Amino acid sequence: MNYFSSDFKLGILGGGQLGKMLLADTRKFDIQTYVLDPSEEAPSRIACNKFFQGNLMDFDTVYNFGKNVDVLTFEIELVNIEALEKLESEGVKVFPSPKTLRGIQNKGKQKDFYVENNIPTAPHKRFKDLKDLKIEVENAAVSLPFVWKSAEFGYDGNGVKVVRSVSDLENLPNVECIAEEMVPFKNELAVIVVRNPKGEIKTYPVVEMEFHPEANQVEYVICPARIDEKVAEKARAIALNVSEKFNHVGLLAVEMFQTKDDEILVNEVAPRPHNSGHYSIEASYTSQFENHLRAILDLPLGNTDSKVAGIMVNLVGEEGFSGQVVYENIEEILAIDGVTPHIYGKRETRPFRKMGHVTIVNEDITKARKIAEEVKKLIRVISK
Amino acid sequence: MNYFSSDFKLGILGGGQLGKMLLADTRKFDIQTYVLDPSEEAPSRIACNKFFQGNLMDFDTVYNFGKNVDVLTFEIELVNIEALEKLESEGVKVFPSPKTLRGIQNKGKQKDFYVENNIPTAPHKRFKDLKDLKIEVENAAVSLPFVWKSAEFGYDGNGVKVVRSVSDLENLPNVECIAEEMVPFKNELAVIVVRNPKGEIKTYPVVEMEFHPEANQVEYVICPARIDEKVAEKARAIALNVSEKFNHVGLLAVEMFQTKDDEILVNEVAPRPHNSGHYSIEASYTSQFENHLRAILDLPLGNTDSKVAGIMVNLVGEEGFSGQVVYENIEEILAIDGVTPHIYGKRETRPFRKMGHVTIVNEDITKARKIAEEVKKLIRVISK
Repeated sequence: MNYFSSDFKLGILGGGQLGKMLLADTRKFDIQTYVLDPSEEAPSRIACNKFFQGNLMDFDTVYNFGKNVDVLTFEIELVNIEALEKLESEGVKVFPSPKTLRGIQNKGKQKDFYVENNIPTAPHKRFKDLKDLKIEVENAAVSLPFVWKSAEFGYDGNGVKVVRSVSDLENLPNVECIAEEMVPFKNELAVIVVRNPKGEIKTYPVVEMEFHPEANQVEYVICPARIDEKVAEKARAIALNVSEKFNHVGLLAVEMFQTKDDEILVNEVAPRPHNSGHYSIEASYTSQFENHLRAILDLPLGNTDSKVAGIMVNLVGEEGFSGQVVYENIEEILAIDGVTPHIYGKRETRPFRKMGHVTIVNEDITKARKIAEEVKKLIRVISK
Repeated sequence: MNYFSSDFKLGILGGGQLGKMLLADTRKFDIQTYVLDPSEEAPSRIACNKFFQGNLMDFDTVYNFGKNVDVLTFEIELVNIEALEKLESEGVKVFPSPKTLRGIQNKGKQKDFYVENNIPTAPHKRFKDLKDLKIEVENAAVSLPFVWKSAEFGYDGNGVKVVRSVSDLENLPNVECIAEEMVPFKNELAVIVVRNPKGEIKTYPVVEMEFHPEANQVEYVICPARIDEKVAEKARAIALNVSEKFNHVGLLAVEMFQTKDDEILVNEVAPRPHNSGHYSIEASYTSQFENHLRAILDLPLGNTDSKVAGIMVNLVGEEGFSGQVVYENIEEILAIDGVTPHIYGKRETRPFRKMGHVTIVNEDITKARKIAEEVKKLIRVISK
């Protein structure tokens, strides 16, 4: 197949920042892209070959879009899977496959999958709705505290809540959910795996994640994670296993907990480029986006090693500001060596909205960490 | 000035591969861009915010385009300078300035500038046309051999010829020209300088260039140049001086000769991103394109150091092939660690047309050099 400067067309469902960063690589390789997104202001509306506005959950919209492309991928899991299945049955290559996506989209199914495949994960129970969960809690069949997770449509901290008392259950939505045992952990880690249809597979180094205490969004991603080499090896091995068991094609971001006694438990996966891999644009030999593209096109995978240490700081909208965005002190951070801001192209900011990220690279990870704090203190995403 | 996700508009004259690679960084920073190019198939037609088709040498076209933007730059020197001057007088920021461009566009003036400013360069004489040059050659006032250069519109090996005998003058165009003394040299080097309006200035490391013997186009660019550190320091100091003397804003690529006795002579300059800096996308902390953008927007300049060694191989159309392009063996080179192809997005190939480039990065420059040869042997730009 000739992808480069040819009539070949790649379709991308979703036109957010992940799609936008993927487009940097389709432009580099001159691969034609069609993008579908509900918003006419989607960050990916620029730099694709054709932009289509439409609902990603609507069968006809996704099906009709997919009929025009040769390979179809997505940058968000919340897409109409039935349309993907029909497209696949009609010969469109869909990567990751709808079958994999089905196993991931529902967190209950995803957890069952880990158990069935002997992949270490925190113990869980599935419930068809909140009512059923409440009954079990009352009967003490589920003991407090635990982590409640909505089975579907959770994203960026929505759909996850620590339940410490019965009253914490009151304001939760009455949807399919899971209750997960709370496991004390030292670190939240992630490993990005890339795998192509031939079965060639590679992992990126283990990264360490720090979450913002209120917004439950990642605040720093540190590559490589400052953990014991043996723990890192274990994490990479588990991530490889997860990708292979899912028969996954493309990127799979595997989020994990490192427990107090250095066990690795898989938390959840994302079948797409992931926030925990953004550092790779500046730090890695091959960015996660380029490797996603290579994988879904069944091209040889690129080197996932790092050239230098990388730290990523998310730029989220400051509390108390809504409206046309201003990046306060961006010139100050640009003056620091090894600092690269990525601005996603959303004109309107609002509290905790993901507006961009900043990558800090340095040969010395300790220096990078100090600079990351400096960057974090300086820059603010506010409104005019 | 707020450039990021704002109403600010950057205009770019020329929509070729240099513009295309610059757009990767305007997208990263979400800076709005307008592009003007004569071809409706220009590589930059995608990823800008608005594309305009028109003649870059036409006063009205350039003037009307420029009136719509806040800052204007160019990726090719062959633009209507009068229009730039009028725009500048009316408050549009034009970087590099039309004044600098005037001093560079005419190679006779450029050479005189070096002499006036005590910048080392090979001795030259200027002629208003070929007829005048012939008279001087006949009178032995210019001695053979020498290098003939067209004063204007030379590009990529056109407009340059080594004249070894009187008969070599026969097929040259009757245009303003210079005759330059042939200086035996060991190496062709280049240093890219970046300078912003505040006067902040940085140089990239010295690179070594190897030319294709027939096409007179650069075949390999090697960073860092494998030369003595003292020679490299001298080359960087001279390049800094050239940029400052021109009062240049933006990127200035300074091409130089290293003579047999380790003198540095300035050959010529290009006031824009340059083929000799493409390696910087993968190898440098800040690519030449990002630094051009930072410079013309008067932002702090990025670190010009390298993370790893980089070698660039140009992808030019193979002799004997014209028509819809095919990149033979591109999958084979993608399988090699540290290899990144850049495909410019030209659908039609023809002999020696610049179709793309490949960057090879490695911690070890000797390994990178070996891989570059392997890449060069494998990949061929042919037609269907």
